[in-house]
Amino acid sequence: MSDPTIASLQDELKKFARDRDWERYHTPRNLAALIASEAGELLALFRWGQDAVTERSDDVQDEIADIFLAVLRFADVARINLEEAGRKKLAVNNAKYPLSIRGKPE
Amino acid sequence: MSDPTIASLQDELKKFARDRDWERYHTPRNLAALIASEAGELLALFRWGQDAVTERSDDVQDEIADIFLAVLRFADVARINLEEAGRKKLAVNNAKYPLSIRGKPE
Amino acid sequence: MSDPTIASLQDELKKFARDRDWERYHTPRNLAALIASEAGELLALFRWGQDAVTERSDDVQDEIADIFLAVLRFADVARINLEEAGRKKLAVNNAKYPLSIRGKPE
Amino acid sequence: MSDPTIASLQDELKKFARDRDWERYHTPRNLAALIASEAGELLALFRWGQDAVTERSDDVQDEIADIFLAVLRFADVARINLEEAGRKKLAVNNAKYPLSIRGKPE
Repeated sequence: MSDPTIASLQDELKKFARDRDWERYHTPRNLAALIASEAGELLALFRWGQDAVTERSDDVQDEIADIFLAVLRFADVARINLEEAGRKKLAVNNAKYPLSIRGKPE
Repeated sequence: MSDPTIASLQDELKKFARDRDWERYHTPRNLAALIASEAGELLALFRWGQDAVTERSDDVQDEIADIFLAVLRFADVARINLEEAGRKKLAVNNAKYPLSIRGKPE
Repeated sequence: MSDPTIASLQDELKKFARDRDWERYHTPRNLAALIASEAGELLALFRWGQDAVTERSDDVQDEIADIFLAVLRFADVARINLEEAGRKKLAVNNAKYPLSIRGKPE
Repeated sequence: MSDPTIASLQDELKKFARDRDWERYHTPRNLAALIASEAGELLALFRWGQDAVTERSDDVQDEIADIFLAVLRFADVARINLEEAGRKKLAVNNAKYPLSIRGKPE
């Protein structure tokens, strides 16, 4: 079962799109482009090595929220359960990077 | 209060990093770069206009999961409550795009 | 007049696409997505703070070449003269960041 | 030998950085982040399927110029000859996608 908060935010995002007749723009491909461009905006806050979390905390919060919402909307449109997909990926990562091997992440 | 699922996934991600001594790599800046590069991988599945959700559903699920987990980890490290930040952004968007104005999203 | 090397590479890229009947995929929008996903691949080489230029020099060269070629192809398809656009932007940046102001770049 | 235009633009970019004491910020890693965030800005112009080349031609020209200059600067700092790297990649692609195989690009 999907998480109540995630599902509730997804419902609001769907309503937001429907109310504006924007559902036709919310294709998986357009939303993948949205995620990538929003990720570029978050990254821009850090690009010269700034401590943006401290110095521009409102902007950082805004940008991560944009990405988060775009991820939720993408998953809803593509009918992917994020919690399940996330847990599956965690299990894969646990197997891929066993505890006995320490070093830099890949 | 943070969502139980989001918080639980964040706890697992933190444990994963701690167990491998990778917390020092999980700076907000490194995680912003991770989000952007993972977003590029999702986008790559769609770049020539493919219907990737149908044709490569496992890859799409993998890539959105990677982005989702990276967003959760970023928020944890930067001490941002994603649910709050997301709801705040939804309110901003509702004000920014009133129902009376229809057209293309920006 | 366009640069001879840039123009020559653009001609080869056009021929490459034409020979494979791929010109219909090379829309500005698809090429913008290509640039963004290739940029994500370059960034991935640096995401944990590695000195990738030294440690993975062939990969770095490969990824920057991919981005460079995608930029050339985009400009050709969108009929933008890169040299002119680049010089114009340099002039804008010189005016925007006068020498008297020193500090971090934005 | 490097292309005269590319080399000349790279010299101007180096002078621009040196004059502002910004060379210390122009590490390969920071420039990879710059390329990715600029690529996100170009992509944003197209994210809902707009014909941005026609409708927002000045913005498109600005954004591709930003990426182009960032690519030139990265290559200079990382001591990569873009023309050589580009031609090498073209040869690789010609071998990878032989003419006898037609279909969608990967």
